Amino acid sequence: MRISQLSAESGVPIPTIKYYLREGLLPQGDQTSATRAEYGQEHLRRLRLIRALLEVGRLPVAAIRKVIAAVDDERIDFHDMLGTAHYALSTPVEPHPEEEDWREARELVDRMIADLGWSVHPLAPTRDELAQSVVTLKRLGMPTSQEDLLPYASAALDLVRDLDITKIPFDGPRDVAVETLVICEVLYGKAFDVLRRLAQESESTRILGAPPCPSGDTTQVTRQGGRSGAP
Amino acid sequence: MRISQLSAESGVPIPTIKYYLREGLLPQGDQTSATRAEYGQEHLRRLRLIRALLEVGRLPVAAIRKVIAAVDDERIDFHDMLGTAHYALSTPVEPHPEEEDWREARELVDRMIADLGWSVHPLAPTRDELAQSVVTLKRLGMPTSQEDLLPYASAALDLVRDLDITKIPFDGPRDVAVETLVICEVLYGKAFDVLRRLAQESESTRILGAPPCPSGDTTQVTRQGGRSGAP
Repeated sequence: MRISQLSAESGVPIPTIKYYLREGLLPQGDQTSATRAEYGQEHLRRLRLIRALLEVGRLPVAAIRKVIAAVDDERIDFHDMLGTAHYALSTPVEPHPEEEDWREARELVDRMIADLGWSVHPLAPTRDELAQSVVTLKRLGMPTSQEDLLPYASAALDLVRDLDITKIPFDGPRDVAVETLVICEVLYGKAFDVLRRLAQESESTRILGAPPCPSGDTTQVTRQGGRSGAP
Repeated sequence: MRISQLSAESGVPIPTIKYYLREGLLPQGDQTSATRAEYGQEHLRRLRLIRALLEVGRLPVAAIRKVIAAVDDERIDFHDMLGTAHYALSTPVEPHPEEEDWREARELVDRMIADLGWSVHPLAPTRDELAQSVVTLKRLGMPTSQEDLLPYASAALDLVRDLDITKIPFDGPRDVAVETLVICEVLYGKAFDVLRRLAQESESTRILGAPPCPSGDTTQVTRQGGRSGAP
């Protein structure tokens, strides 16, 4: 298909598609003449992935570029490709080894991963990301011992084992496998986060004994406020 | 304490504290003279919360302002205050009722919440947020039937019931309760997301049979690339 049809099918404006081509997020089409290139289903699938990571995952373009580079680099092996895509999804965190509570948090993270028997690279940036959460929670007076965190780790592993990992076609084409990994991490991750907030609303309502789903009362106004910006 | 001590204790620079005061994120101190105000432990706690939501939660200032406004507004009742804070954490999503797959996704969300028996306000913006995830996953060819989503919902409810909600002091002071709710949603939510990515790395490694935690080989270089930006 031509770029105009690619735009129509994907809903992405032509100038945006050209921007993705320039940035290397989208592979070039087959040049059929000096002014014309052909695009295929793989371009459409890639465009949908980019939009999903931008709009739902709210990933910065730089992170998406790293993911895409890993998918497209034929030289690196499959496992490294997954690792690169995986780490590109980490929010960069600056470690603070000069602070005692940072060091304690990081030690806790490393000890917990070892005790769980998880295979995580010693240089994985995710370790610092978790240490940052731990140190922040601790400063806010919240429980952060290994015993407090283990139930979360165990729930996370169940989710990955039972749901995420079963969706990844490890024996299929490598670009599809890594795309699926990213979709699982970012998009099912987002869906889970929203479900958790829905569950939290429901449980708060249950505990506080307020009528579920009231209509025509003041709570509606207040809650719409949460959405529109008017308090 | 004076503003200089508040800055030293919290690690937040004085100009930033003054910005939070102007923006209404931080309540004014007790004015003890024309040029001097006294700040207390509640200011320190609030500052830590603001920094945590900004730095770890990556919430925009506007969302934090809504949460804080809900905590500080004595007129609204406790449940509404929780609701307002809660919805302020939603990412605003534009619904697309003119698109058929959007309508289907939104219907699926409403039906699933009803089938689960969850008490969620009909106008909760979280419903649209979940519909957006569903429609995006579907367009990427991922499984999104109610049967596919229910295990995620069930895992989310377990996490909220067993872990998050037990931490919220519903019978304590209302500002502490709502602050804890926000901490649970944003910070334990973030910690869980990181744990899930750690579990995903570990499970991929287990399935692909690569040596766990290699050192001195090329994967280290590739993976550090994920962190530093060099591929």
